[in-house]
Amino acid sequence: MEMSTSVKKILQNYESDNPGTKTNLARLLSHGRLGGTGKMIILPVDQGFEHGAGRSFSCNPDAYDPHYHFQLAIDAGLSAYAAPLGMLEAGAATFAGAIPTILKMNSGNSLSRATTESLMSDQAVTSSISDALRLGCSAIGFTIYPGSDHMYDMYEEIRELAEEAKSCGLAVIIWSYARGNMSKVGETAIDVIAYGAHMAALLGAHIIKVKLPSEHLEVEAAKKEYLKNNVDISTLEKRVRHVVESCFNGRRLVVFSGGDAKGVDGIYEDTRAIRDGHGNGSIIGRNCFQRPRVEALKMLDKMVDTYLGKA
Amino acid sequence: MEMSTSVKKILQNYESDNPGTKTNLARLLSHGRLGGTGKMIILPVDQGFEHGAGRSFSCNPDAYDPHYHFQLAIDAGLSAYAAPLGMLEAGAATFAGAIPTILKMNSGNSLSRATTESLMSDQAVTSSISDALRLGCSAIGFTIYPGSDHMYDMYEEIRELAEEAKSCGLAVIIWSYARGNMSKVGETAIDVIAYGAHMAALLGAHIIKVKLPSEHLEVEAAKKEYLKNNVDISTLEKRVRHVVESCFNGRRLVVFSGGDAKGVDGIYEDTRAIRDGHGNGSIIGRNCFQRPRVEALKMLDKMVDTYLGKA
Amino acid sequence: MEMSTSVKKILQNYESDNPGTKTNLARLLSHGRLGGTGKMIILPVDQGFEHGAGRSFSCNPDAYDPHYHFQLAIDAGLSAYAAPLGMLEAGAATFAGAIPTILKMNSGNSLSRATTESLMSDQAVTSSISDALRLGCSAIGFTIYPGSDHMYDMYEEIRELAEEAKSCGLAVIIWSYARGNMSKVGETAIDVIAYGAHMAALLGAHIIKVKLPSEHLEVEAAKKEYLKNNVDISTLEKRVRHVVESCFNGRRLVVFSGGDAKGVDGIYEDTRAIRDGHGNGSIIGRNCFQRPRVEALKMLDKMVDTYLGKA
Amino acid sequence: MEMSTSVKKILQNYESDNPGTKTNLARLLSHGRLGGTGKMIILPVDQGFEHGAGRSFSCNPDAYDPHYHFQLAIDAGLSAYAAPLGMLEAGAATFAGAIPTILKMNSGNSLSRATTESLMSDQAVTSSISDALRLGCSAIGFTIYPGSDHMYDMYEEIRELAEEAKSCGLAVIIWSYARGNMSKVGETAIDVIAYGAHMAALLGAHIIKVKLPSEHLEVEAAKKEYLKNNVDISTLEKRVRHVVESCFNGRRLVVFSGGDAKGVDGIYEDTRAIRDGHGNGSIIGRNCFQRPRVEALKMLDKMVDTYLGKA
Amino acid sequence: MEMSTSVKKILQNYESDNPGTKTNLARLLSHGRLGGTGKMIILPVDQGFEHGAGRSFSCNPDAYDPHYHFQLAIDAGLSAYAAPLGMLEAGAATFAGAIPTILKMNSGNSLSRATTESLMSDQAVTSSISDALRLGCSAIGFTIYPGSDHMYDMYEEIRELAEEAKSCGLAVIIWSYARGNMSKVGETAIDVIAYGAHMAALLGAHIIKVKLPSEHLEVEAAKKEYLKNNVDISTLEKRVRHVVESCFNGRRLVVFSGGDAKGVDGIYEDTRAIRDGHGNGSIIGRNCFQRPRVEALKMLDKMVDTYLGKA
Repeated sequence: MEMSTSVKKILQNYESDNPGTKTNLARLLSHGRLGGTGKMIILPVDQGFEHGAGRSFSCNPDAYDPHYHFQLAIDAGLSAYAAPLGMLEAGAATFAGAIPTILKMNSGNSLSRATTESLMSDQAVTSSISDALRLGCSAIGFTIYPGSDHMYDMYEEIRELAEEAKSCGLAVIIWSYARGNMSKVGETAIDVIAYGAHMAALLGAHIIKVKLPSEHLEVEAAKKEYLKNNVDISTLEKRVRHVVESCFNGRRLVVFSGGDAKGVDGIYEDTRAIRDGHGNGSIIGRNCFQRPRVEALKMLDKMVDTYLGKA
Repeated sequence: MEMSTSVKKILQNYESDNPGTKTNLARLLSHGRLGGTGKMIILPVDQGFEHGAGRSFSCNPDAYDPHYHFQLAIDAGLSAYAAPLGMLEAGAATFAGAIPTILKMNSGNSLSRATTESLMSDQAVTSSISDALRLGCSAIGFTIYPGSDHMYDMYEEIRELAEEAKSCGLAVIIWSYARGNMSKVGETAIDVIAYGAHMAALLGAHIIKVKLPSEHLEVEAAKKEYLKNNVDISTLEKRVRHVVESCFNGRRLVVFSGGDAKGVDGIYEDTRAIRDGHGNGSIIGRNCFQRPRVEALKMLDKMVDTYLGKA
Repeated sequence: MEMSTSVKKILQNYESDNPGTKTNLARLLSHGRLGGTGKMIILPVDQGFEHGAGRSFSCNPDAYDPHYHFQLAIDAGLSAYAAPLGMLEAGAATFAGAIPTILKMNSGNSLSRATTESLMSDQAVTSSISDALRLGCSAIGFTIYPGSDHMYDMYEEIRELAEEAKSCGLAVIIWSYARGNMSKVGETAIDVIAYGAHMAALLGAHIIKVKLPSEHLEVEAAKKEYLKNNVDISTLEKRVRHVVESCFNGRRLVVFSGGDAKGVDGIYEDTRAIRDGHGNGSIIGRNCFQRPRVEALKMLDKMVDTYLGKA
Repeated sequence: MEMSTSVKKILQNYESDNPGTKTNLARLLSHGRLGGTGKMIILPVDQGFEHGAGRSFSCNPDAYDPHYHFQLAIDAGLSAYAAPLGMLEAGAATFAGAIPTILKMNSGNSLSRATTESLMSDQAVTSSISDALRLGCSAIGFTIYPGSDHMYDMYEEIRELAEEAKSCGLAVIIWSYARGNMSKVGETAIDVIAYGAHMAALLGAHIIKVKLPSEHLEVEAAKKEYLKNNVDISTLEKRVRHVVESCFNGRRLVVFSGGDAKGVDGIYEDTRAIRDGHGNGSIIGRNCFQRPRVEALKMLDKMVDTYLGKA
Repeated sequence: MEMSTSVKKILQNYESDNPGTKTNLARLLSHGRLGGTGKMIILPVDQGFEHGAGRSFSCNPDAYDPHYHFQLAIDAGLSAYAAPLGMLEAGAATFAGAIPTILKMNSGNSLSRATTESLMSDQAVTSSISDALRLGCSAIGFTIYPGSDHMYDMYEEIRELAEEAKSCGLAVIIWSYARGNMSKVGETAIDVIAYGAHMAALLGAHIIKVKLPSEHLEVEAAKKEYLKNNVDISTLEKRVRHVVESCFNGRRLVVFSGGDAKGVDGIYEDTRAIRDGHGNGSIIGRNCFQRPRVEALKMLDKMVDTYLGKA
């Protein structure tokens, strides 16, 4: 693995990390078709925990097999594959070394009463740093819910896990999904998304994952400042750019999730906005494995090309 | 102990486990009359904790003696015997090496107010991994209640216990019983059972125990997908098959509980459906020890024959 | 100390315990006038925690002094003396080796609001296994409240303490007192008492302490089974026998508490029922120390004689 | 330090303690003008935590300085000085060896909502045994609130701290202040005070601190016994004596707090009652530092003389 | 680094601390333009956690970059720079040794429901002592909310962190912000501010940070004493002086926060009052980074001059 100039430059931003963590960040940034460009596409498969197996995979029954997802991520030339404990255990040896893996360490599920009473939204920690190490992972993934009554507990969980991960040379990725003490539309408001991303950075994340932000401004006190200071949030590209500056002005990598399954054109449009707004890539799950493999590969191919400036 | 081809093939699915855990999985799969077939029948006796001694055993007073159950499982040629701490302590030396044992590590009881207010359903952890090791067990058993307000706590308990168990070479069996935030009939709905089984797999279980699913679909969003994708849930066999695919498409063993005491014909019918749907066996308690020993042995004999394809 | 045949036979039931715990069980069974018979009388003095000093001891002011109780238990030839931390600390050196002692590790008190809102009944853990060891105790005592909302927490406390106690060669005695999610009369119902005793056995207790059961049947589902299976609960002796069978059919020792202070005739009658129903003895506190010493000694003498078959 | 016969006799009561703890008890009993008499006067200054600095010290501004209190206790020839972490840190080196110190390990404050909703009364643990050791303390002090909903948590905190303290050779002093599930006047009722003192003794305290009890009887069931058994509570001296007998009949030291600031005559009267009722001394804070230094010294001088039988 | 007489004198007040902590206190007191004077100005940047990135930095977009704040503090000749984990990680290597840093270890955020229901105000612990050490920090910072229902938990958190910090030679700074069980205006009432500062001192803080107090008296019982004892709170200088005496009569350093962004004249006035009231300096965040860099430097320059007596 020889590091590109882009990757070297990015690693310089992680100035307090030990060589182990830098090595794993380099692995994530150097693998796959986007290797060396500073962009990433990550395949996350924790949908089965969130929604159940049948609801997630019955439209594409091959996806019931954990090996399917490893192979898809590899064949598409993606940067990394992220999944909860059991999914990784079921394939980590077969695919050892074939693609960087990310252990998604907490998960929620839709049987919980807290889904509808979202002020109480929470997740369970379902694996450990030891698990990540024995499975050969490069990073851990962890979800926080800024705005939920459980938010501080979640922050304290990732605080402890991130400290252990960093001391073991792993990278830390925080999924920052605002919910709870806000309107439904507020969950993807630009001020809220940027706030959630910034908190993830403050919590010490190396890579931050958020949803793509809308033009809505949710918090009154924030709205006032955005308007007063003419923060340009008129296009998705501009909003991506604002999220990037909220992540220590680009000193931290930020990737965007694709959201609900949707048409490929919307996805390509999102990808261009992420690219042009200087986002670092996509984390795209349902839109991959809920499509037939051939279609998913084709779509991912075009997303890669987009990030490479070929599309 | 020489491993059959079936067992060898199953063990390959546990690709991330250490040789100790593989050894114990091999023990569970190689013991008794079904040894080597990939099928299992397990005798669980935690009914006394759930319902009390008199209510559980007065119909067959020999069953008050813990040795009775060890002997029954041995004489019936079953795969393993599962029980809470005290029950195993009372017989583990006498029957050392005679049959693989499973320490059931948490238990609930029906004196709890939470039985009727089932959103709060929970269990107490009543033993430790050290206990399992000093008693010579091959596996631990642990119940989760997907849908209960305590579900995340239970997930975090088994997370910690499973990690320790695996590091000590024990196998992990999760009893996944949905309840709480759903209708009573929803607890055995096919979407809910498959969801609960899938989460157990994601939590890292080697073997998953669920109830036999009904044709009911409980969760609206899941129902939509099942119908859209024509998931065949029309027969018990088909539903078992769907549960099996929800357990990493068969990469994890799944066994089915017998439920309430009932007539033997119903039990044989269930057994055939489990076999034909590619389930890995039965875990059957009350239907064994609440029958006279002779009748229980006869019934178990026929179940074994069914799994062997002789009935 | 030479072990009697009775004691040897009892010790065989504790087949999973280490020699240290067997030694301490042997001490409890070999001490005092009942030594070697398999019967025990234990003096417990935790009444001061439960009700206060004045309410407990003002009727017999000598009892304010912790040494009084050690001496009473010794002079009466009892099997053991049980008390909370401070009481043992105040006499353990003076009476070192004179009588086996039991550290009562948790205690409740009647100033708590939870006494009247009994669904919340709980106790505080007030000492440690290290305390038991440094004070030379043979066993620990611990109360659980099956039916209370705190029951699972209490189970998890004793789980942890019992594991540590056993690993240190101590014996474990569980006081199992049902309360909370039941009627007042249900607390001593035969089905509830037998259930509570059985759970204590499942939790790994070596010796189980319960109240003497009444003929009442509390839980509807249990009642049905008791009636259907003609469980004989018509006399106290028969009910004691049912509790004994609920404790692994006699593989675990069970002793009965005396309850409120009452007339000696009632106590002798209870003693005979315990003896004839194959119970293993009495644990009797208030009825000892709330009587003048001479009367208490006389009463205990007659109880011993009863267990010896001389009365 | 040569031990008086009185002190030697008292130390014999602490028969289970190690030489380290006996040494520190001896220090407390041998220091100052009352050294060797078995009586003690302790200066506690945690009022600033309870009520704030201005409310506590503005009447005597010299008292803002932590050194003031060390010096006052030394100059008055008191037995020991007790304070929270910060107060001791600010003077422990300057006054090293000059007077035994007690680290008050938990504190409450009057900004808490729980002051008015007293069922929830609690305190925060604000220091550690390591702190006590590095600061050269002879003992730790800890408050419990029998009757509060947090009482069991507080008991479990002191259980753990007391075990560690004893293993390190420190003495343990429990401040036992009943509150919560009782009337306001009940907090100092003789039955409640005696009950609280007894529980502190059962929890393993070496020295117990309570308020002076009134003639009121709070708990109905206790009242019945006190009346039936003619417990003499007619004078303060008699009530002190009853508290002393409730502390293992004098096997544990008990000291009484002065309560609100008041006139010196009342204090002298209290002191005589404590002395004549065989109490072991006074713990007096606000009545010292809320008086000018000269007056405080004069008052303490007279209290000492009273305990010495000279006044 | 040679210590000034002022600094030597201040360090003598920290008589219980180890040389490591004294070294770090000396670093804070010896750095920058105020080095050696006993005064300090600290730049804290945790606003992004409290209010979000856009709301905090959009008025001065350079401030999105963590390096901006390090450089500002250095260029202004300030005493130290304080920030949460991520902010320090992003610059600690680049600016190693250039200015003492303070790891702000807990943070709250305004998405929390508890902001409006302020009785529940809390923060999350977001870093560890290990983090402070690996990042080369001189001190830790921690917020407490006296009056909040979570106050005791926060006290216990800082108790544990402060003990570890001190044992590792770090200094401890407590941000003491009263809120919860009081009126809004009561949060800065002189009695409440002085109380909060005193509790921070009792909790073992080396440096205490509070808001500037108003003339209001909030707590009735405190008000009575303030009036009776003629505590002079008529000017800001006098109130600062009262806070200083509440911090062990000046034995602990106390710095004052600037509060909301406001005009520079108000800030200079505050600075003079702090200086003349013998406060130890300012901790000023929003008023720095929410101004253009040039203006901020000019303002800080004048503040420094004011503390130096030149303005």
